[in-house]
Amino acid sequence: MSGAIDDPTTRMRRAKDAAREIARLTSGDRARALEAIALGLEQRTEEIVAANATDLDRGRGEGIGDALLDRLRLDEQRIVALAAAVRDIARLADPVGQVVGGHRLPNGVALEQVRVPFGVVGVIYEARPNVTVDIAALALRSANAVVLRGGSAARASNTVLVGIMRDALAGVGVTPEAVQTVDDFGRDGAHALMQARGLIDVLVPRGSAALIETVVTESTVPVIETGAGNVHVVLDETAPEDWAREIVVNAKVQRPSVCNAVETVLVLRAAAERLIPGIVDALDAHGVTVHGDQTVAALASGIVPATEEDWATEYLSLDLAMRVVDSLDEALDHIRSYSTGHTEAIVTTDSRNADRFLAEVDSAVVIVNASTRFTDGGEFGFGAEVGISTQKLHARGPMGLTELTSTKWLARGSGQTRA
Amino acid sequence: MSGAIDDPTTRMRRAKDAAREIARLTSGDRARALEAIALGLEQRTEEIVAANATDLDRGRGEGIGDALLDRLRLDEQRIVALAAAVRDIARLADPVGQVVGGHRLPNGVALEQVRVPFGVVGVIYEARPNVTVDIAALALRSANAVVLRGGSAARASNTVLVGIMRDALAGVGVTPEAVQTVDDFGRDGAHALMQARGLIDVLVPRGSAALIETVVTESTVPVIETGAGNVHVVLDETAPEDWAREIVVNAKVQRPSVCNAVETVLVLRAAAERLIPGIVDALDAHGVTVHGDQTVAALASGIVPATEEDWATEYLSLDLAMRVVDSLDEALDHIRSYSTGHTEAIVTTDSRNADRFLAEVDSAVVIVNASTRFTDGGEFGFGAEVGISTQKLHARGPMGLTELTSTKWLARGSGQTRA
Repeated sequence: MSGAIDDPTTRMRRAKDAAREIARLTSGDRARALEAIALGLEQRTEEIVAANATDLDRGRGEGIGDALLDRLRLDEQRIVALAAAVRDIARLADPVGQVVGGHRLPNGVALEQVRVPFGVVGVIYEARPNVTVDIAALALRSANAVVLRGGSAARASNTVLVGIMRDALAGVGVTPEAVQTVDDFGRDGAHALMQARGLIDVLVPRGSAALIETVVTESTVPVIETGAGNVHVVLDETAPEDWAREIVVNAKVQRPSVCNAVETVLVLRAAAERLIPGIVDALDAHGVTVHGDQTVAALASGIVPATEEDWATEYLSLDLAMRVVDSLDEALDHIRSYSTGHTEAIVTTDSRNADRFLAEVDSAVVIVNASTRFTDGGEFGFGAEVGISTQKLHARGPMGLTELTSTKWLARGSGQTRA
Repeated sequence: MSGAIDDPTTRMRRAKDAAREIARLTSGDRARALEAIALGLEQRTEEIVAANATDLDRGRGEGIGDALLDRLRLDEQRIVALAAAVRDIARLADPVGQVVGGHRLPNGVALEQVRVPFGVVGVIYEARPNVTVDIAALALRSANAVVLRGGSAARASNTVLVGIMRDALAGVGVTPEAVQTVDDFGRDGAHALMQARGLIDVLVPRGSAALIETVVTESTVPVIETGAGNVHVVLDETAPEDWAREIVVNAKVQRPSVCNAVETVLVLRAAAERLIPGIVDALDAHGVTVHGDQTVAALASGIVPATEEDWATEYLSLDLAMRVVDSLDEALDHIRSYSTGHTEAIVTTDSRNADRFLAEVDSAVVIVNASTRFTDGGEFGFGAEVGISTQKLHARGPMGLTELTSTKWLARGSGQTRA
């Protein structure tokens, strides 16, 4: 007997076959499958921690930084949180089968547009092993199969997590082939995913700008781009000082390492003297380094001179660029030049400025008088987040379960033909 | 003085700048711009016909077939129809500004999801010059700028049509830069379109399967795939003979050259003897050649033996493949193997078979007891059609104006920050 063939394409085919089975399950069946996964994670915590320890050891040996090691780490507490997240996803409303629209044609044919699963969702991501479970749970909740390609740094952890999920599915009579990994094929696995037209219905890259760029450029499979956030806050001459200060500080320091944190503040010249000293003081008290232009430097102390590069940088750290502009037009021009289309906000009480900003800024989320940190699936009330789309096709802004579905048209007639 | 730089990228940049202007126009302004285009087409009919004559002459010289010559031809009557189509598009409801959803967050921030134009729509298409006007009108109605790349066979016609549209826009005070062509850059123009991330927001290929395959494979810009239709009709043992015959004949002969025409009929064995002779007779009376398996050949005369290739062929002609299958499962397996995911239909009065077919067939449009020819933007009541999407991302099935828009989230607060 020859050994079974096992390559990325074979696994994707198994996922495609499994997707048909998953699509036939009821919403209740799928919720129960997720409960089984949550239980499996809790019961096999030791196994996960042990595998994770080998990843952490190898990481330390290779000299990866503390921040990356922290993202890689799975301890007992994080596994409890991961299981809880899976149970939360199990309880989300099921988008599949939702009737989106429909009408009766003049000839009597009844037309209905309904939500259906994509089929097979591919995901390419980096160090954080919790993404393995998170995205598989979201895919299964929306009746999709999933093919995972995680970062090599988390290989041992991901192998155990995928094994636990597959065992849990099999334990409740659901095909384990609905959760596949191509981690063990290295770069070939990622390449196969990107070229798998007809097997992978949509590919979601999650991670660094470089990873996303590679996937968008090389993939022939449709991609949902979850992009970087070079996020701006504009302060105009009518901005209340307290709102301006609180929003800028919150948008920068509440969690500086994420994509919805502000990176550049643009202050209208007429507001500069009134607002900049107090805001820089407040930022300084939170340990933020302000990279400012000459006007900012003249109004506050401790300013690092800003260069062209600062306007284009997504710091993801306690650094902030600050620039004084002559007008709202100049602020809008700056945003057009440097924004990544994620989130921009203005602080103003002038309704004309608010309306222009909302209309003219071409970003996924445009905010008046609130923190940019609200761009988030959880904050938007989606219950979970697949990522934040910065492209305009299919999904824009925070993506929930619905964004992991497509639609199809059903037509029911009684012998009608076209005249 | 040096000459102005003029290359595909420069034109796409102009389109991007123009898109901002177009987005600021009211719906009424844009409708009036389309009226001006319709009038321009009527007033300059002679110019169009003359340019078209040079394309036709060159085509004849190069020995292109009659079918292609017919698609290339623009006579007075067709120009009248083209202008009428533009006026119809001008009268369509404007999707831009439509509020798709929204709610208030617990902290009082008001969230609203609104339809916005994509920005710049790119289109790569083949011989038919009417697509030049059609797609530009659809793009402008939905507040987009458009960059066109037509087939070289229609070069002279397209040049005149683009000139007329740009003149008409300028005549009503709308920037003509909203309509661009890159035809004069040949293959470089198409290549530039496919690589223009950041300038082109969405690319729509319209034409042959080979063209679509090239665009999907080579483009780094998001693509909406308008695909080929290897369309199936299934007849089960409960199919009324008249419905079965009328639907198959209509789906094949009403317009055989289009993507929603049926290409393969699958007959359940229990229905073969009852249905096949009459249907083949009716098809024969309309000049259809039936490529059938042995069972079909035994039940009717004039059958051409079908090969594996017939099941995979989109004939787009008065040819039809016919196969007898043992069960609905076998029919569903056949469809899974050969369908392009466009449209499939079943004729049945068994509700269990109808429900299974609707649930399990993974195509953009799934039909019970009606002709496959209903898969059409006009028939669906969209008023116009950008194409029929066979992908699952963003749009699936007939695409109207709405599918040329994206959404963005607007958030209005009063100083809220994230806890």
